[in-house]
Amino acid sequence: MKVQLENVKPMDIEKRSFAIITEELGYELPEDKAPIIKRCIHTSADFDYAQNLMFSDDVVEKALKALKNGACIVTDTQMAKAGINKKALQKFGGEVYCFMSDEEVAEIARKNGTTRATASMDKAAALQKPLIFAIGNAPTALVRLYELIEDGKLQPELIIGVPVGFVNVVQSKELIMQADVPYIVAKGRKGGSNIAACICNALLYMAGGRE
Amino acid sequence: MKVQLENVKPMDIEKRSFAIITEELGYELPEDKAPIIKRCIHTSADFDYAQNLMFSDDVVEKALKALKNGACIVTDTQMAKAGINKKALQKFGGEVYCFMSDEEVAEIARKNGTTRATASMDKAAALQKPLIFAIGNAPTALVRLYELIEDGKLQPELIIGVPVGFVNVVQSKELIMQADVPYIVAKGRKGGSNIAACICNALLYMAGGRE
Repeated sequence: MKVQLENVKPMDIEKRSFAIITEELGYELPEDKAPIIKRCIHTSADFDYAQNLMFSDDVVEKALKALKNGACIVTDTQMAKAGINKKALQKFGGEVYCFMSDEEVAEIARKNGTTRATASMDKAAALQKPLIFAIGNAPTALVRLYELIEDGKLQPELIIGVPVGFVNVVQSKELIMQADVPYIVAKGRKGGSNIAACICNALLYMAGGRE
Repeated sequence: MKVQLENVKPMDIEKRSFAIITEELGYELPEDKAPIIKRCIHTSADFDYAQNLMFSDDVVEKALKALKNGACIVTDTQMAKAGINKKALQKFGGEVYCFMSDEEVAEIARKNGTTRATASMDKAAALQKPLIFAIGNAPTALVRLYELIEDGKLQPELIIGVPVGFVNVVQSKELIMQADVPYIVAKGRKGGSNIAACICNALLYMAGGRE
């Protein structure tokens, strides 16, 4: 079979991809959410994200305001941390934290019989900063965030709740959607570190963080 | 709505997830490929990976042999690099390279009007080591690998060809499946850095790299 490559300049590949996504979707998305939904589809080639992303009231407006005010991002994987556009975030004064590989976090998790994700959320909650949580892997992180919010110990600017998987993933997302917190959640089993990172990046680019 | 969490110990979550995947699949996968296919589903919650992963002849056997002999892994994203279990790889003497952020690579790409992914493959090809390529993002990386192989300038131990997206992604994978190289490819548009990393990890765990 002869393979025919499409002739698209490096700088135009993303633009062309978004045009294909828009065309194949075939219907209009809400204007403030479209860049987020389309970037999730761009990252996964999975059009399920047109249906499964849930947004709390005015969440995009709130998220952009938080980012512009220098909110920091806490993730539950080194992969999501690697994927977030840190240059764009730094432009507003924010930085990214992931405590999953901290020896101290591993030690506390062992002692308490929890996941490291749970322990790392406790460590993050102690930061005296406006925080956005981008959870792409561990449902236990979302469950702990829910508890911290319910106990009045944490008030995040935004929770991006997109862990992926088969054990307590669906439930952990339902919990977050019941909490008093701005959220963007991928309802169901799907999500991932790539999705967590790309939602952060979509927001950063909407906020004007891209050069 | 009352949310009911399943009571699974942290150390048992992955095992339980794989059991759910096996049950829901409802049919037997080839024994040597099952851990790879199931880990892709585990990473994405997307059962399409039961259908779209393509394996060249004896590729799993060849890949495990290469890893055990200390092959190094080259990726096209920092995210995939972050996701690969480096402790497991180091056990066999291998390491992970990603040249995408190298200033030299950016410079060459600018000069040649190519993507950085293309330039980073040229840099990788100059390494005098047995190499496994794990491409989760850039189809242009796969196209360049195809050219290098065709020109007799590169003979990888394995290409994991799982870029995701809408422009030349499908075609770049078809090219690799036509080349004389062991491959694991996600046919179609799907894939990603997470999929690239998890295929590496599946192979590493099969090779005995996990503690």
